Amino acid sequence: MDRAKDAPDDRSESRAAHAGSDFLQLSPGDAPPGGLADWLAGALRAAVADGRLPVGARLPATRVLAADLRVSRGVVTEAYRRLSEGGLVAGRGRNGTVVVAAPATRPSPAPPVPRAGGSGVFSGTPGTDVFEELRAHPALVDLSPGVPDLAAFPRAAWLRTERAVLTGLPTSDLRYGDPRGVPELRRAVAAWLARNRGFAPDPADVLIVTGVAQALGLIARVLLADGTGTLAVEDPGSLGVRQHLVASGLVTPPVPVDAYGLRVDALRASGAPAVLVTPAHQFPTGVVLAGGRRRELMRWAGGGGLIVEDDYDAEHRYDRPPVPALRSLLPEHVHYTGSVSKLLAPALRIGWLVAPPRHRDALTAAKRYADLGNAVVPQLVLARLMDSGALERHVRLLRTRHRRRRDAMIGALRAHLPGAVVHGVAAGLHLMVTYGGAGADDRAVAAEALARGVKVQPLSWFHQEPGPAGAVLGYGACGPAEIERGVALLGEALRAVG
Amino acid sequence: MDRAKDAPDDRSESRAAHAGSDFLQLSPGDAPPGGLADWLAGALRAAVADGRLPVGARLPATRVLAADLRVSRGVVTEAYRRLSEGGLVAGRGRNGTVVVAAPATRPSPAPPVPRAGGSGVFSGTPGTDVFEELRAHPALVDLSPGVPDLAAFPRAAWLRTERAVLTGLPTSDLRYGDPRGVPELRRAVAAWLARNRGFAPDPADVLIVTGVAQALGLIARVLLADGTGTLAVEDPGSLGVRQHLVASGLVTPPVPVDAYGLRVDALRASGAPAVLVTPAHQFPTGVVLAGGRRRELMRWAGGGGLIVEDDYDAEHRYDRPPVPALRSLLPEHVHYTGSVSKLLAPALRIGWLVAPPRHRDALTAAKRYADLGNAVVPQLVLARLMDSGALERHVRLLRTRHRRRRDAMIGALRAHLPGAVVHGVAAGLHLMVTYGGAGADDRAVAAEALARGVKVQPLSWFHQEPGPAGAVLGYGACGPAEIERGVALLGEALRAVG
Repeated sequence: MDRAKDAPDDRSESRAAHAGSDFLQLSPGDAPPGGLADWLAGALRAAVADGRLPVGARLPATRVLAADLRVSRGVVTEAYRRLSEGGLVAGRGRNGTVVVAAPATRPSPAPPVPRAGGSGVFSGTPGTDVFEELRAHPALVDLSPGVPDLAAFPRAAWLRTERAVLTGLPTSDLRYGDPRGVPELRRAVAAWLARNRGFAPDPADVLIVTGVAQALGLIARVLLADGTGTLAVEDPGSLGVRQHLVASGLVTPPVPVDAYGLRVDALRASGAPAVLVTPAHQFPTGVVLAGGRRRELMRWAGGGGLIVEDDYDAEHRYDRPPVPALRSLLPEHVHYTGSVSKLLAPALRIGWLVAPPRHRDALTAAKRYADLGNAVVPQLVLARLMDSGALERHVRLLRTRHRRRRDAMIGALRAHLPGAVVHGVAAGLHLMVTYGGAGADDRAVAAEALARGVKVQPLSWFHQEPGPAGAVLGYGACGPAEIERGVALLGEALRAVG
Repeated sequence: MDRAKDAPDDRSESRAAHAGSDFLQLSPGDAPPGGLADWLAGALRAAVADGRLPVGARLPATRVLAADLRVSRGVVTEAYRRLSEGGLVAGRGRNGTVVVAAPATRPSPAPPVPRAGGSGVFSGTPGTDVFEELRAHPALVDLSPGVPDLAAFPRAAWLRTERAVLTGLPTSDLRYGDPRGVPELRRAVAAWLARNRGFAPDPADVLIVTGVAQALGLIARVLLADGTGTLAVEDPGSLGVRQHLVASGLVTPPVPVDAYGLRVDALRASGAPAVLVTPAHQFPTGVVLAGGRRRELMRWAGGGGLIVEDDYDAEHRYDRPPVPALRSLLPEHVHYTGSVSKLLAPALRIGWLVAPPRHRDALTAAKRYADLGNAVVPQLVLARLMDSGALERHVRLLRTRHRRRRDAMIGALRAHLPGAVVHGVAAGLHLMVTYGGAGADDRAVAAEALARGVKVQPLSWFHQEPGPAGAVLGYGACGPAEIERGVALLGEALRAVG
């Protein structure tokens, strides 16, 4: 492009349009001579109609808008008066002029499209959006696993703590933060893990992330950069985690889980250099990795294997003594990750990753490029809730409530699915049932249950190799009466399909 | 592994340790006979000493801990009494027993290690952690660009709005959210863009992200999956953005910027299939992409090119009429991204990406695997601040304050760097100076300035091809007196090096 030719054209354009307001990109040059108030009222009316000015929006002060547009204040006052007469805006005294009419209907974000009919979500191989699809489905009772009792979320304590944090926050803390997390939370998480999970990491080894999902993505990135393209997973195991790892470019060979947890002999036989495990409470079977298996797995890691320990719900135990995290035994070989999703709420998006020191810098870089670090204020709020003991009190409260819900679910299963076998009742927020009776199609049962208004996830979703039919049932988020009703409907569905 | 051999061993282990508390993983089986209170006091003392129980932590109620440990309540009471006598804990009435002694010193997260002496940050090629390194450096005045006036952050309005949001929030909104963002914010951002940036996207095309950095990472992922490995960038242009793109696996050939913006002829000649631009206010030159160049760039895109529009600070304009986003002209060919980092605060980590419809699903998947979506509550707070007009009022306030700071900086530059040329004064939160005098080493000047206590970023950081020496100076975050002082110190540094 010829610069000499380009220049005069451009410069004259920008000089020509000097009067104007950022507000709605108004430019009085568009108005017909003598019709400024008409033109302005029309522009505002159009903005209300198409939703650019939603109900509740405040118009600029007449003085301010007049100055921006370089018109007399009377023009703006007149335009506002006309809108007010038309019922679109109203004066609110010191609060100025506010839009009061409903905006015209505009397209809303579309919900995910259900595949085919009500139960399409359970037909075929589950897609990457299957959990969102299931979530978007209306239902009477939602027995999806992985969610704690959210009605117990300490809203008042959170707000009170946030007020205290924001009041005392130095302005410089509103800048870009440390991508590794604020020091306060890294220390608080280290102390939390020492109190509750049996190991005391150096806070310098704690990376604050947005949850286990992000941690797995960062780990995948570092493993791939290291030439490790394979991360074995438990079978059955989390479908969401497996989808995530595959999307990150890893191969995820299945290693069977039995009544004592991961079959370490099968892990060895697979030749995989790394494995993801849920030792404190295997998902979905609920098995706690047995002592002999722990030692066997540690020997495998000591010989060069790498472990990713997904400690997704370990704090929720009812009948068992605390099981310390694997990370406590072999810090050089274990990536440990957890989050507040099951302690407080998934919507908070805060978690942590404690990595082997040799991976620390690479993970920091990966986190930096993922999002430049978590939001600052919620980290400081969580740090205070951890340090003050408020989070431990909350978990204790949750445990009492969850235990009651678990008991309600077991009772309901005995009554309504007498032939089913219940697994994994000692901990967590879910349990697993197997239906018994070879060949039962658990996706058909789940589809039938959904048609009756109850969401359950079929066990076959979580198997890579063929396994028994059944379901994974969450009880954390539902009251006992809801659980009773949901399980009764599941029993009907099972009989209808069976 | 032989299951029959494994089983008895494991099962007996877990049976043996049935009494115990999650709290500090206490197991009374470790206590000597008759020494339970001694043992418990010792365990608690150790936990205070090593920081697992920080000052302010509340111990469990004696009743609760005794039940967990299956010991008599007197044992716990006695242990607490001993700690209290030792000054480590104190009774707080209804608030229970609280740790009051300072914990022993523990390692804190280490700050990034400065390369070599105070000014090492400016020697050699800037590393990927260069901005954190510079941030960690103490200084009297910080003239780093990219930060608005954070003292003006509306803390009270944010808290008030959050209280309203949390009070009315359905419990189900505390679950995992839509990875694309909450519908309220996607609608509010669409309306914000319509009011302020000259285009009205369908809310379904708005993806909520944690900021421009995350948006670029997601775009890089989608481009690479599409077979596009090259994204041309402006030269000079953002160093942080370029580092990010390179870390994401893209090649970033430089396209020169002149007084009218991106040289589209050079873009064509480069053969790059895609380009990242900052058309509203080029970073760092401050040039607004001129009309002829806009049209030329649109022709290039219409012929199959892809544009990534980084609209990082477009809302901050002083002398110019609003420049609508490029996205308004050719939605099928422009990825548009912006954030609240320059409107409210970088620490919030909220931004948006409006993508060409054909990339929407791939970007949704990338966002899902990045972090399962932004935190929910801050999205709802921001949506209300946008819908009510509060954010527009805040930006108006910022603009007034920033204009004053810009004027202070220009005045100080005239006084203290009379030979320097000032660029890019019409908009934004920073300006660019070139020192004049061929061969001036702007990194040496920056190092010298840092030694005198003022942080400035050398212009050469932002050049891929050789260019004039100078600096990029942010004025958003500093008061006029600070700016005067910082620029005076920069002038001294320039004379010392020159």
